[in-house]
Amino acid sequence: IMEFKATEHQHLRYNPLMGEWVLVSPHRMNRPWAGQLESESFETLPEWDPKNPLCPGVRRSNGEVNPNYESTFVFTNDFPAMMEDVPEPPEGNDELFCMAPARGTCRVMCLHPKLNKSIPLMNCDEIEAVIDRWIEEMKTLGAHYKWVQIFENKGQMMGCSNPHPHCQIWASSFFPNEPKIKDEFQRNYFLKHGQALLSDYLEKELNKKERLVCSNEDWVCLVPFWAVWPFETMILPRRKVTRMQDLDASQKRHLAFILRVITTKYDNLFKTSFPYSMGWHGAPTGPEQSEDEHWVFHGMYFPPLLRSATVRKFMVGYEMLAQAQRDLTPEQAARLLRDQPEIHYTLANS
Amino acid sequence: IMEFKATEHQHLRYNPLMGEWVLVSPHRMNRPWAGQLESESFETLPEWDPKNPLCPGVRRSNGEVNPNYESTFVFTNDFPAMMEDVPEPPEGNDELFCMAPARGTCRVMCLHPKLNKSIPLMNCDEIEAVIDRWIEEMKTLGAHYKWVQIFENKGQMMGCSNPHPHCQIWASSFFPNEPKIKDEFQRNYFLKHGQALLSDYLEKELNKKERLVCSNEDWVCLVPFWAVWPFETMILPRRKVTRMQDLDASQKRHLAFILRVITTKYDNLFKTSFPYSMGWHGAPTGPEQSEDEHWVFHGMYFPPLLRSATVRKFMVGYEMLAQAQRDLTPEQAARLLRDQPEIHYTLANS
Ligand SMILES: O=P(O)(O)O[C@H]1O[C@H](CO)[C@@H](O)[C@H](O)[C@H]1O
Ligand SMILES: O=P(O)(O)O[C@H]1O[C@H](CO)[C@@H](O)[C@H](O)[C@H]1O
Repeated sequence: IMEFKATEHQHLRYNPLMGEWVLVSPHRMNRPWAGQLESESFETLPEWDPKNPLCPGVRRSNGEVNPNYESTFVFTNDFPAMMEDVPEPPEGNDELFCMAPARGTCRVMCLHPKLNKSIPLMNCDEIEAVIDRWIEEMKTLGAHYKWVQIFENKGQMMGCSNPHPHCQIWASSFFPNEPKIKDEFQRNYFLKHGQALLSDYLEKELNKKERLVCSNEDWVCLVPFWAVWPFETMILPRRKVTRMQDLDASQKRHLAFILRVITTKYDNLFKTSFPYSMGWHGAPTGPEQSEDEHWVFHGMYFPPLLRSATVRKFMVGYEMLAQAQRDLTPEQAARLLRDQPEIHYTLANS
Repeated sequence: IMEFKATEHQHLRYNPLMGEWVLVSPHRMNRPWAGQLESESFETLPEWDPKNPLCPGVRRSNGEVNPNYESTFVFTNDFPAMMEDVPEPPEGNDELFCMAPARGTCRVMCLHPKLNKSIPLMNCDEIEAVIDRWIEEMKTLGAHYKWVQIFENKGQMMGCSNPHPHCQIWASSFFPNEPKIKDEFQRNYFLKHGQALLSDYLEKELNKKERLVCSNEDWVCLVPFWAVWPFETMILPRRKVTRMQDLDASQKRHLAFILRVITTKYDNLFKTSFPYSMGWHGAPTGPEQSEDEHWVFHGMYFPPLLRSATVRKFMVGYEMLAQAQRDLTPEQAARLLRDQPEIHYTLANS
């Protein structure tokens, strides 16, 4: 009988944070691709564009003029998905037609004054300024809101409508689906084992090594055992932290380093400005905080590219209706990323 | 104080089939779009292309030659995500690194011999032949497999790599995430109310009317109260059926009619061959069937377009990390679809 090899034979893997399974089909990497090719990332950009509403000194569509900011710049989204003061839906009593109030606010945060920058092309001081600003926003918004979601959509493929380096911060009175499920699964694990799920997980991954991508004194970046996107990664703290707001000086500094390294590896992989959605999850915030020792603060990158700068993974029919499916294994993805240099390909020969 | 209006004010809606919430932000429809524009659908296609591996009489990459089929044609995917006989992963005992066996098979089904056809351009006899073939496949594969997922990815935007009208059938030994959750929520509802969730739901929607799109003697197509995709719809049977295999002659005939009507309305909405992923859910199959009175067989369309043939909704950062979000309300979407003619725009003036 043939022996099982994870790199050759289909199998399921369990995501203990979400209670979901993913179908891994490594043999499928050989399939030819005749479908949609993505256009390569944005053309060469200038440092400043008087028509780009995120650049310093430019007038936005609502009439406001951006300051001549020199580091980060945060403002309320001109077209927010959530606003602060809106009438609330009536309380219903039909479980099949159930509405609930959604108070919130949406902010846009420019990461750097220059249009042609991105995290891998920024220096560590500049990235640390981004982290400091994230923390400030988490504190201000977290004082009022149950959940503050920081996320970056990078690249047109990820619905990003402006090439200026920026992220978004959506704060809400409600606890959204994804982190709510993670909260439950982490709590249950903690009740059972007296340890945080992600602390135990990291310890084991540090021994196994096969899914590690890069690390430093304070942080480890790895491809989760249950990763769905081809080159999905997770960033975990070596010393347990529950919220971004609790990072100390060393952790902030080293987080800047590791963000620069992983995004450089991403860009190097297919020699392109690597598209992704990324964001942070930590213990919930708001005025009614409960115990949170089961939570470990972590970051996630969800990049769509599969084989090259123009061939992506589509999460469509089967994935929408049945279950997530991936081709290359998380271990193969980790090795490919691990093998990438830590110097950005556009800077390598200069 | 302002009065709450669902068409103006943000709110959450609950999906009782999945236990998830969706954020509805109708005021956001006004936001300008400067991001990626999709290329319009496939150029004009011939009826037959000797280089297209799904056309009758053409040799596929594995050397096999397709028969000169005149209706539907089914074959095992040359690059399947699941195969029947593969070694199984070892049983582990670490809940953080949990693998499970995944036996299965993946079939491709051509819906029509002609390359330039699609459901809305087929006649009702041809569509009924598709339904008959679906039922045949459900029976054959359902005898062995726990779950048989029929789905169609239509359009390049939905990862479809071949313009020939075709769908896929993935059968698996495991019960995938999405239908497993639906199974639980439908069972709990049935235990509580002694009625199937989707039967109660349909009855109420037939009274409320505001989310209905089209209907006939046997079927109703509506935009679910909790729809995530801009023009998502669901097809529900007037008389309760648990599986596609159980449809009677009248239900099959009228299903062909309603598929033609809804896909025609979709194409007419933005005057394009409307991209979508669609598929069917019914009670699970396999040798160990248990009671299934809580299940109602239904179809779902998940189309990505939002405002025109080239502007789509991206489910990215916030949606991946926190919660699904939509702009126009399900009622607005239903009205727009309801208002579309039932004659295809390419045939209207002939
Ligand atoms: O098999 P296809 O059509 O080439 O592939 C398409 O549908 C599959 C099932 O939804 C997805 O896993 C693929 O990502 C997608 O490109
Ligand atoms: O606000 P943006 O960047 O224009 O919009 C983008 O990100 C949002 C949050 O993930 C999504 O809801 C939109 O579909 C996407 O286009």
